[in-house]
Amino acid sequence: RCCTVARAPGPTRGGASAQPSPASASAIENPCGTAPGIRARLCEADVFCLPGVPDEMKAMFDRDVLPVVRIQAGGRVVRQRLLRCVGLGESDLGEKIVDLMARGRNPEVGTTASSGEIGIRINAVAESVAAADRMLDETERELAGRLGSVIYGRDADTLAGVVLRLLRGAGATLATAESCTGGWIGKLLTDCPGSSTAYRGGVVAYSNDLKTGLLGVPAEMLAQDGAVSASVAQAMAIGVRERCGADIGVSVTGIAGPGGGSAEKPVGLVYIGVARADSVEAREYRFGADMPRTAIRLRAARTALNRVRLLLVEEESSFDGRP
Amino acid sequence: RCCTVARAPGPTRGGASAQPSPASASAIENPCGTAPGIRARLCEADVFCLPGVPDEMKAMFDRDVLPVVRIQAGGRVVRQRLLRCVGLGESDLGEKIVDLMARGRNPEVGTTASSGEIGIRINAVAESVAAADRMLDETERELAGRLGSVIYGRDADTLAGVVLRLLRGAGATLATAESCTGGWIGKLLTDCPGSSTAYRGGVVAYSNDLKTGLLGVPAEMLAQDGAVSASVAQAMAIGVRERCGADIGVSVTGIAGPGGGSAEKPVGLVYIGVARADSVEAREYRFGADMPRTAIRLRAARTALNRVRLLLVEEESSFDGRP
Repeated sequence: RCCTVARAPGPTRGGASAQPSPASASAIENPCGTAPGIRARLCEADVFCLPGVPDEMKAMFDRDVLPVVRIQAGGRVVRQRLLRCVGLGESDLGEKIVDLMARGRNPEVGTTASSGEIGIRINAVAESVAAADRMLDETERELAGRLGSVIYGRDADTLAGVVLRLLRGAGATLATAESCTGGWIGKLLTDCPGSSTAYRGGVVAYSNDLKTGLLGVPAEMLAQDGAVSASVAQAMAIGVRERCGADIGVSVTGIAGPGGGSAEKPVGLVYIGVARADSVEAREYRFGADMPRTAIRLRAARTALNRVRLLLVEEESSFDGRP
Repeated sequence: RCCTVARAPGPTRGGASAQPSPASASAIENPCGTAPGIRARLCEADVFCLPGVPDEMKAMFDRDVLPVVRIQAGGRVVRQRLLRCVGLGESDLGEKIVDLMARGRNPEVGTTASSGEIGIRINAVAESVAAADRMLDETERELAGRLGSVIYGRDADTLAGVVLRLLRGAGATLATAESCTGGWIGKLLTDCPGSSTAYRGGVVAYSNDLKTGLLGVPAEMLAQDGAVSASVAQAMAIGVRERCGADIGVSVTGIAGPGGGSAEKPVGLVYIGVARADSVEAREYRFGADMPRTAIRLRAARTALNRVRLLLVEEESSFDGRP
């Protein structure tokens, strides 16, 4: 956020009598700190400057800015909701909801993307909070109907937090075997307070002999298929699940670059494995050789979490569907 | 960064003939994109507005903004250097260099802090690049003399990158055993391209039985001392070093909160262990019960990396000192 009061030019523009501040400016008292704010009128706009310390800024915003905005809004209310999506590109997702993103629509719908995660922002303007929320609910239902399980949460949800919630709901535990993500999946899961109830831990098998020594991946398989392969991803997922005593094992092995790629196995090639007691599968992803190392690794970590999420969502819904 | 051109009030301020933009404004051509920039004169300041796309912004800055700044600077040059520090609080560090931070000094010296890492910014103004760099070198030598190994690197260095560089220099490998950091140390190390030459991997032992099963921490020790203890940190470091075939094992076990604390073992209590072939030690840290979970975890991860760095720096310097 940025907040600026320009120095207003005086009558003799740029000359000696130029005024250093707008004549209309006044101080806003700071109830939590020492730095006051400034309120000024600039052309037809009210300009507010508040200190950067978040708590001070929020207190002053609520007390001195919001009431002014409320009066100027003439009783209208703006309510916002963010739907969080993963597993579909921004343009593919956009195609499915292009009519809802029409200019001038109320609620207004728009998307933002960052490293494989897409946010759909919904803004509703109405005469009351209740009316705006009803409009948000309606648009959210429409989006959910079109996008299904691509939407993983809303507002402050995180993918790891949703996975942990689903694990707890299913009474299941998770273990991770990470090669190219190097611990990032574990980091994302343990970012969430209370993650130990569903996340058991895992292995960062960055070197090949740890894949054998700590996860039981056969050395012949590594020699024959290479560390970045579907078979090794499966063996890593099975191994970490067993060794950690978890219900689900998820694994990632890939080439994050910038070095280490080949024509056959380019930078961006990633295999993600998921093992349960009675099943194991691995899928291939190609995140793009031109993508930076960090973006490939973050996408790999998020995709792994999403694979676990979709597994749990499917099991939940197939259970619901039983007679 | 924020760049704003205020709407300059016309002669009949706020009235119908208010001008929408300053009369002095002109467009800046965009050689890489479609959005032009704006150059305007506001009171005594030149104001440049450039598009937000970094590549476009940088190209326009180099071509159209920097030459103007150079002329206005009258041939003077500003050079900047950032020294990166860890392991000392900002106020303790400040005390050691308070005279260098005097206002008006050239080079100017100032500090910034974020989550246990402190940056010392040095700004030198001189008649030439060479003269400014000499001034930076001189101030850096003065700072290094006072702060020693508290300074871990400069400019774009990262703590993990420096640790990997030292490991390679010593021909040594590292393994990590993480409890409360949950994989963050591994993530920081594998953020660096080529980390596999010195980082072998490790174990995320988030649940207690993984500390026993994957790291060989005796169950009796866990029962008697608790998972958050110096003895368990030592056993984790020894176990991960052996099981990963690494020269150095580093471990973290602690209470990141917000729950799980007690009077005896409060939130923020962290033990960090370091094991070598012939030695093991663990130290206690108290990162503060009022600190957010993320800050405690990041400080624990950085402190663990710093412990490994200091070990390697000491060994390097003791080796240099031999006759």
